[in-house]
Amino acid sequence: MKRETRHIPMIKYEDGKITHTDDEIAEEYPLTIMVNDEEFATMVCTPDHLEELVIGFLASEGIIRYVDDILSMHIDKGRGYAYITTHKQVNSTSSNKRWIGSCCGMSRAFYFQTDAKQAKTVMDDFKVKPEDCLNLMKAFQERASIFKKTGGVHQAAIASREGIELIFHDIGRHNALDKLNGFMIKNKISRKEKMVIFSGRISSEILIKVSKMRLGFLLSKSAPTDLAIELADDLNITAIGFARGKRMNIYTHSNRLLIEESTELDLN
Amino acid sequence: MKRETRHIPMIKYEDGKITHTDDEIAEEYPLTIMVNDEEFATMVCTPDHLEELVIGFLASEGIIRYVDDILSMHIDKGRGYAYITTHKQVNSTSSNKRWIGSCCGMSRAFYFQTDAKQAKTVMDDFKVKPEDCLNLMKAFQERASIFKKTGGVHQAAIASREGIELIFHDIGRHNALDKLNGFMIKNKISRKEKMVIFSGRISSEILIKVSKMRLGFLLSKSAPTDLAIELADDLNITAIGFARGKRMNIYTHSNRLLIEESTELDLN
Repeated sequence: MKRETRHIPMIKYEDGKITHTDDEIAEEYPLTIMVNDEEFATMVCTPDHLEELVIGFLASEGIIRYVDDILSMHIDKGRGYAYITTHKQVNSTSSNKRWIGSCCGMSRAFYFQTDAKQAKTVMDDFKVKPEDCLNLMKAFQERASIFKKTGGVHQAAIASREGIELIFHDIGRHNALDKLNGFMIKNKISRKEKMVIFSGRISSEILIKVSKMRLGFLLSKSAPTDLAIELADDLNITAIGFARGKRMNIYTHSNRLLIEESTELDLN
Repeated sequence: MKRETRHIPMIKYEDGKITHTDDEIAEEYPLTIMVNDEEFATMVCTPDHLEELVIGFLASEGIIRYVDDILSMHIDKGRGYAYITTHKQVNSTSSNKRWIGSCCGMSRAFYFQTDAKQAKTVMDDFKVKPEDCLNLMKAFQERASIFKKTGGVHQAAIASREGIELIFHDIGRHNALDKLNGFMIKNKISRKEKMVIFSGRISSEILIKVSKMRLGFLLSKSAPTDLAIELADDLNITAIGFARGKRMNIYTHSNRLLIEESTELDLN
């Protein structure tokens, strides 16, 4: 895997001693997306897999559903522009409204307008053993090489029961998921019996994104928010947080976990 | 400090054993901001200090500069609306464009248009001892009570050399800083010889936000991105990352650190 990092000079201070050295830093790259010759959005991202990112982002925005909805795509990496033409006319003003807000914030309008159309109840009811979840998280963590080095990159993966199938990184939480989704759309990969593994917090936005990806299982090493859990409950998504070592917290739809009867003795 | 959390039922899985219990989860609350009777933005936030959040957000958006720019403010906490009237007419369409993009993403348009006006080179050149930085970070970490409990909340503080003066929490990285800024605007607090301490990554957006707050010193326990470091360099901001225990990395403008001559012997 290509590492999108740069070495930057810095001064290290440790226990009263200073050292002039350098540090490997995650790249943050602005990319402007032009749809049918109109500026649609500018994002900052980790500059790899830009095609997947753009496809996933446009799918997430409801602009495309299938790769065939894109007539042409050209990415000018040097200048930071992606030029896309689509069949449909795109109203960029209405889509703008949805993205306003805080960094990790979700617009209420976004939730109620776009999501009413796109965020469907997930019907996939495949079953996973708890130990498989923890093994998948372990494998996921072992792949977090950039994350460990630069401390500033999110990681998202698609896994089946058998193992991790796809993994993407980005400084933006959303971008990592958009890259996954873009890759799956581009390569027409089945979403049946697949789960998302994610390095970041389970916020409402992330949960909605997973439902738009039509995946019913989200495994994270981080905490959820209350709104995300409400949405997971509504949208039939199994949300698991704090998956670390031998433990994890199952917040919603535990029916997808194959929990043996004998393990249930410790209920209280 | 009030804790904005909820107890949510969950199933704990640990080492083959399952327990039905509950978990303390961070709240995620949607707030729609109406400026002069027009919908300006919807954000999700941690529902405390909403007045400070709204003031800080509007300042960050360039809608207001001083608290007196606000004619009236009414917050309907039950329905999740904040109603603000200002002297100036606000063009919401142009501001929307700037916020598009990834979760932790910054629009290039945002950078080049608004920031050209707002992100000024910081002139404050107060000096801090490295040990004081580490002590401030230690005090900051000790205050991270919600963060420790729910694992999903960012923390931002204003500190002087003497200690931490203000501290705010939010599930949104930006919101925590907006609450700080809103409080300082509302209470006309001097920005001289103050620094920002932040729990999250130093991204370009965060760096720009700090420069808009007219503060020249940013101390974080997390990693920076390359773009953030370039901006810190340009805007005369001292950016310090990975401040943990006895060590920290000084990326830009180390002239604000009082490093004794004798400690410089270990240069290489």
